[in-house]
Amino acid sequence: MSLLIVGTVAFDAIETPFGKTDRITGGSGNYIAHSAGHFTHDMGLVSVIGDDFDQDELAYLKKIGTDISGIEVIKGEKSFFWSGKYHLDLNRRDTLATDLNVLANFNPVLPEHLRKPDFLILGNIDPALQIKVIEQLEARPKLIAMDTMNFWMDIALENLLSVLTKVDLLTINEEEARQLTGEYSLVKAAQKILTMGPKFLIIKKGEHGALLFHGNRVFFAPALPLEDVFDPTGAGDTFAGGFMGYLAKTKDISFDNMKRAVIYGSALASFCVEKFGPQRLKEVTQEEIEDRVQVFIEIVDFDIILE
Amino acid sequence: MSLLIVGTVAFDAIETPFGKTDRITGGSGNYIAHSAGHFTHDMGLVSVIGDDFDQDELAYLKKIGTDISGIEVIKGEKSFFWSGKYHLDLNRRDTLATDLNVLANFNPVLPEHLRKPDFLILGNIDPALQIKVIEQLEARPKLIAMDTMNFWMDIALENLLSVLTKVDLLTINEEEARQLTGEYSLVKAAQKILTMGPKFLIIKKGEHGALLFHGNRVFFAPALPLEDVFDPTGAGDTFAGGFMGYLAKTKDISFDNMKRAVIYGSALASFCVEKFGPQRLKEVTQEEIEDRVQVFIEIVDFDIILE
Repeated sequence: MSLLIVGTVAFDAIETPFGKTDRITGGSGNYIAHSAGHFTHDMGLVSVIGDDFDQDELAYLKKIGTDISGIEVIKGEKSFFWSGKYHLDLNRRDTLATDLNVLANFNPVLPEHLRKPDFLILGNIDPALQIKVIEQLEARPKLIAMDTMNFWMDIALENLLSVLTKVDLLTINEEEARQLTGEYSLVKAAQKILTMGPKFLIIKKGEHGALLFHGNRVFFAPALPLEDVFDPTGAGDTFAGGFMGYLAKTKDISFDNMKRAVIYGSALASFCVEKFGPQRLKEVTQEEIEDRVQVFIEIVDFDIILE
Repeated sequence: MSLLIVGTVAFDAIETPFGKTDRITGGSGNYIAHSAGHFTHDMGLVSVIGDDFDQDELAYLKKIGTDISGIEVIKGEKSFFWSGKYHLDLNRRDTLATDLNVLANFNPVLPEHLRKPDFLILGNIDPALQIKVIEQLEARPKLIAMDTMNFWMDIALENLLSVLTKVDLLTINEEEARQLTGEYSLVKAAQKILTMGPKFLIIKKGEHGALLFHGNRVFFAPALPLEDVFDPTGAGDTFAGGFMGYLAKTKDISFDNMKRAVIYGSALASFCVEKFGPQRLKEVTQEEIEDRVQVFIEIVDFDIILE
């Protein structure tokens, strides 16, 4: 198993200034797999759904090389459902509904054959569950990455700090980095987080790009200035999925290769926001991805020769 | 005359979360000259001050190659004074005092020998005065750049739109670009602004870097993630000064050279914020600037070879 993904597989209902959806598929694990599937077809996904979940979506996941034997189906129950409404400033959103449903009793169990992944990504779920997943591993992956959010800092800080000591890379947004460390300066926040366990840190800044920290090294990845951002739901997970998918494909966790992975993750995220849900991620071709990466290369390119 | 600067020369009193100053020197024209002086010693500064202004500051401006014969001194009156207090989020500040003093009747008159500059930068002043300056030119400069702010959009939009038709490059921040165009997307806002007169546009995003637009081309310049930002006052003017100083030095207004100029401007701005007022700009050496530019080169550097 090249890449094991643990995260939610869910329904979302989304309203943005540009449109509105009824119940569509979503969830962190689902977005990660959709994105990583552009780089590797040797994935496993551990999650929980109700028997109401979309069979076409599961078929799609299998088609792109996802072992879904770790997705537990709870009969007679409903899948996790989230509903939100975005402001014109798409960085701001109001949650309209969070129906945990099957997620309330999620207890991730790794099937025997998924316990030795080369790479593991823990989507944004309860840190107690993230720990449970790590404890089931039979060999240490090359890299364990995790995502989290402010909610867990508020209600489960102790478990969050514990899982941090067990992972190699954390992805987090600016505000969360500040909340976790009490430091306003992102440089100081990063320095603190790098003493909490992870050796690598990615601070996601949405439309302003992302920062990758490792020791004293920093990489600043641009975000493309997009003409239209249609729906930002899942962009962070798509970024993480592209990042991990690229690492799983290249099997190289050097800082230089992680920089490339950040660019590929950013490219995938820039597609994700073009349509509602994971739709655009299903359509995008290798050629489109390469063309988008070329734009990333050009947009930050300058030549200054210092004496 | 290589570079003509029109802007304020003033006193500021600044409070940040990290400290507080009494009256220190400031003003857009002053910051621009301090910054541009690292690239050219053939500058002119047109402004107005009272007879209370700091003689040492004027001596420093002369020392770095600024012709100050265009700075009108009004006897018995006071220099422009601004006082502000920054929040922990240094992008937010409260203005505590704006005493126009001599600025209330500022009528910029270009001395005869300053009317044929190669490059002209119009700092953030009343657009009516920016027009008056342009009307006094005896030859078209290679490039006219201007800065402005939301205040002039609120109270002098017609004049602002008029001066825009006469300049080559506009620097503006994100919110101002949105206000000026009614477009939330920066790409759409940029496209609109490029139809209003300027052929080049720089959108300043503070700690998130800057975007340079020209036709269909975009350059994304990073900002350095700084451990400590001490005082952001003047950072935008310092950026503009470094940018124009670099162009004046190299006499090359190609898009590729403008990208370099953006990096040098960003480097100077990153020094400006390290101390109160223009102090750090007086101290910084060529070697420090080159070292800082090297950091900019490294922070966005990645190598992806597409097939």
